[in-house]
Amino acid sequence: MPQLGLLPRRAWAALLSQLLRPPCASCTRAVRCHSQGEEPLQVAEAVLTSQLKAHQEKPNFIIRTPKGTRDLSPQQMVVREKILDLVVSCFKRHGAKGMDTPAFELKEMLTEKYGEDSGLMYDLKDQGGELLSLRYDLTVPFARYLAMNKVKKMKRYHVGKVWRRESPTIVQGRYREFCQCDFDIAGQFDPMIPDAECLKIMCEILNGLQLGDFLIKVNDRRIVDGMFAVCGVPESKFRTICSSIDKLDKMAWKDVRHEMVAKKGLAPEVADRIGDYVRCHGGESLVKQMFQDPRLSQNKQALEGLGDLKLLFEYLTLFGIAKKISFDLSLARGLDYYTGVIYEAVLLHTPTQAGEEPLSVGSVAAGGRYDGLVGMFDPKGHKVPCVGLSIGVERIFNIVEQRMKTFGEKVRTTETQVLVATPHKNFLHERLKLIAELWDAGIKAEMLYKNNPKLLTQLHYCESTGIPLVVIVGEQELKEGVVKIRSVASREEVAIKRENLVAEIQKRLSES
Amino acid sequence: MPQLGLLPRRAWAALLSQLLRPPCASCTRAVRCHSQGEEPLQVAEAVLTSQLKAHQEKPNFIIRTPKGTRDLSPQQMVVREKILDLVVSCFKRHGAKGMDTPAFELKEMLTEKYGEDSGLMYDLKDQGGELLSLRYDLTVPFARYLAMNKVKKMKRYHVGKVWRRESPTIVQGRYREFCQCDFDIAGQFDPMIPDAECLKIMCEILNGLQLGDFLIKVNDRRIVDGMFAVCGVPESKFRTICSSIDKLDKMAWKDVRHEMVAKKGLAPEVADRIGDYVRCHGGESLVKQMFQDPRLSQNKQALEGLGDLKLLFEYLTLFGIAKKISFDLSLARGLDYYTGVIYEAVLLHTPTQAGEEPLSVGSVAAGGRYDGLVGMFDPKGHKVPCVGLSIGVERIFNIVEQRMKTFGEKVRTTETQVLVATPHKNFLHERLKLIAELWDAGIKAEMLYKNNPKLLTQLHYCESTGIPLVVIVGEQELKEGVVKIRSVASREEVAIKRENLVAEIQKRLSES
Repeated sequence: MPQLGLLPRRAWAALLSQLLRPPCASCTRAVRCHSQGEEPLQVAEAVLTSQLKAHQEKPNFIIRTPKGTRDLSPQQMVVREKILDLVVSCFKRHGAKGMDTPAFELKEMLTEKYGEDSGLMYDLKDQGGELLSLRYDLTVPFARYLAMNKVKKMKRYHVGKVWRRESPTIVQGRYREFCQCDFDIAGQFDPMIPDAECLKIMCEILNGLQLGDFLIKVNDRRIVDGMFAVCGVPESKFRTICSSIDKLDKMAWKDVRHEMVAKKGLAPEVADRIGDYVRCHGGESLVKQMFQDPRLSQNKQALEGLGDLKLLFEYLTLFGIAKKISFDLSLARGLDYYTGVIYEAVLLHTPTQAGEEPLSVGSVAAGGRYDGLVGMFDPKGHKVPCVGLSIGVERIFNIVEQRMKTFGEKVRTTETQVLVATPHKNFLHERLKLIAELWDAGIKAEMLYKNNPKLLTQLHYCESTGIPLVVIVGEQELKEGVVKIRSVASREEVAIKRENLVAEIQKRLSES
Repeated sequence: MPQLGLLPRRAWAALLSQLLRPPCASCTRAVRCHSQGEEPLQVAEAVLTSQLKAHQEKPNFIIRTPKGTRDLSPQQMVVREKILDLVVSCFKRHGAKGMDTPAFELKEMLTEKYGEDSGLMYDLKDQGGELLSLRYDLTVPFARYLAMNKVKKMKRYHVGKVWRRESPTIVQGRYREFCQCDFDIAGQFDPMIPDAECLKIMCEILNGLQLGDFLIKVNDRRIVDGMFAVCGVPESKFRTICSSIDKLDKMAWKDVRHEMVAKKGLAPEVADRIGDYVRCHGGESLVKQMFQDPRLSQNKQALEGLGDLKLLFEYLTLFGIAKKISFDLSLARGLDYYTGVIYEAVLLHTPTQAGEEPLSVGSVAAGGRYDGLVGMFDPKGHKVPCVGLSIGVERIFNIVEQRMKTFGEKVRTTETQVLVATPHKNFLHERLKLIAELWDAGIKAEMLYKNNPKLLTQLHYCESTGIPLVVIVGEQELKEGVVKIRSVASREEVAIKRENLVAEIQKRLSES
């Protein structure tokens, strides 16, 4: 299993060595705590506000980012980019092409696609033009793209930000701006082959990130709907009850049941029948068992779904990942557009006691089949079947960042290889000529932006930022037509003929 | 000069070979035509609209992206990513750290930063929370970040989308959503050293992209203001007259003069005095000449600006790029926040006749010094001097894409190395096992999503998408415990023991 992707081998190894350590108690607690309640952003805001209040110069002027958003510092960017590189290199390994769509769409393109979540869309102000909304996911823009360009077949990935006006008090620890990495296969193919590949990709990415043990829950929208039908849910309530079931990973059954009965008017006995089903989860054998279920086996839709799941498990076994997959009747997925197989990957913590249920720390990847979405855009309703997945980079990032903080690890935020320095005054011109030569040769080089910096300051800069080499030019060197190369780690210095400098540095960098 | 950056050597070489060809007449015409008028998007929209009208099923439902925005197809993404890789690798060569900010900011963070351009900001709808606007550039969010985190010193790059409600009928060929690549140096340093590095970076990037000859116009806001003062512009009109002068690259002098006199109430003789200055451009010698200018030399601000430009040219000469720089008194830069040196890079076409003025195809990079912006966010007004640059990826992309279209060049949009194929029926299971083995070894592999594809279809797929190797498993191979490796280019096939397959493919890929 390749875990390095496109990354510089050593940089990634350093990051992975941090991840590989077993999560200690404080780390586990921190992650749990985060997903249960604290919005780190709001804490940061509160601190900032109080800092500003202390000044009292401009008490009404609080510098901050909008609610639910955050900046990424250079340290955070390094971690983010390593995660994205690993994800994208996996998508490319599976033959996907890249593409991009605008951050906002015509509002009408997004309506009637997200069901109960539609209210969370960010609309743009009507400034005398079109009515626009920020994209809510990357799936609907992809479907719009396929329909608009009459593309019938495409395997693409898309990395981009999406925006949702989630209320932080309801859904804890979620951001309103977040990054998604999507992989989708559009086209009419033989059943379950692309679907199985999507699950293989999720496994490769989660293995590669080494976040710990994980499980992918699988179900099928047709099984969900069939289950509703045989339990006695009126068809008009299928989607809204589906939204309630989708909350089972965040809410207890009794609360979901209460929502369905008290708020959505479902008969209590119907809710209880659903309750019996959604407790079921297991492997391939549960699929076989459900084929025998006296009620479910009477429903045509459910049988179609079960048939596809049976085939899916066959392919997953060939891919060697069947043991990572759990057929889970409580998995419903909130979005309206799914029509077939649906899945969601969750990270598990190793149980402390044998026999204890693994503790889930939330979904980190999800997806499913949506065969009707492209047709909603097409004037003739021509369908293009699609299946895909989305990696929840934000949540993965939070876990990695939290672990790194816990272990007090630092990452280098620059790649500079050489500092051009001098021990003497009035050597700015020499430094400028020298550094231009290095840049022109493709060497990553910096110098201090001072006319006459102290040598010690220059050497400290290397140590604090991790620059491995110093090129030193002074009076003696200039006279002799040489420069000194100093290794920051060993403090060894050697004099090199000025004309051999670039070659010598390149040699050293290729060796290290 | 390194031109390959982080790119796969061959991929970039292919792209560059296209760029390196001299622009032919039709290409030049196409580029000119584009920058003069045609909005390719609107053409595409018109075609799409008429296509949909032909159907007449849903005449009111037109699938399109919002005005001034576009999707990037996989072909376009490949070109875009090559450009971004080259730009970012240059930024990293100069020791910059990455960072990111949200797509939108609190509206109050952006007000009073952009002068007359402020009306072009996209506001979000008030949905019962904060008042938000999409970011208009990456500079103001950077200043906000510095002030918010009390950072006094930072060298960072930022690649991201920005949004401006430009009217396509006024500013032709511009998009409302576009990508910027910014590099900035914040901190109190000795004069002109960071400023010179910014110009060096612009040269490295434009050389690396091989877009043809270019020129960087340089001026200083203090010289612009000094010029206004000695010409008799009332101080209250400095910024608005500056905005007019900024249009000189898009409008003729007589139209700019008309705007200043008729619309902005400037006295005609004042306008004419300005007119004399803005016709001046030249090298270092013009700086010396302006020191002697009877009016300008009486203005303290202008003298400060000229003194800095003198020092700047000294450093640019040491960097070996002085001949690419033109001191140009017509350069004003529209944004309010600049306080010192300003610059703008333009591409030139080789003149057809000796002595002809080079024809400019518009600005592709720009920037300047903004020493007051961070202080606008700080409650105590603490200043952090900054200088930076922004690469206009969109315009560069349009030029590259146009040339590629003209030459009919195609780029590979996937990186797949191996297709797993079979000549026989009922070999899906074997193919699935085989491909999982390749993926797990990090090999980029695809297969057709059919139970029983024809061999010819599979081979055609390789040819049309550029996959170099085919791994073939059939009845005979299965019996003998081998697989065949076929080179798509040479059509040669060899049988390899199944257990040696991964090693053999890796060997072939490393050799090619």
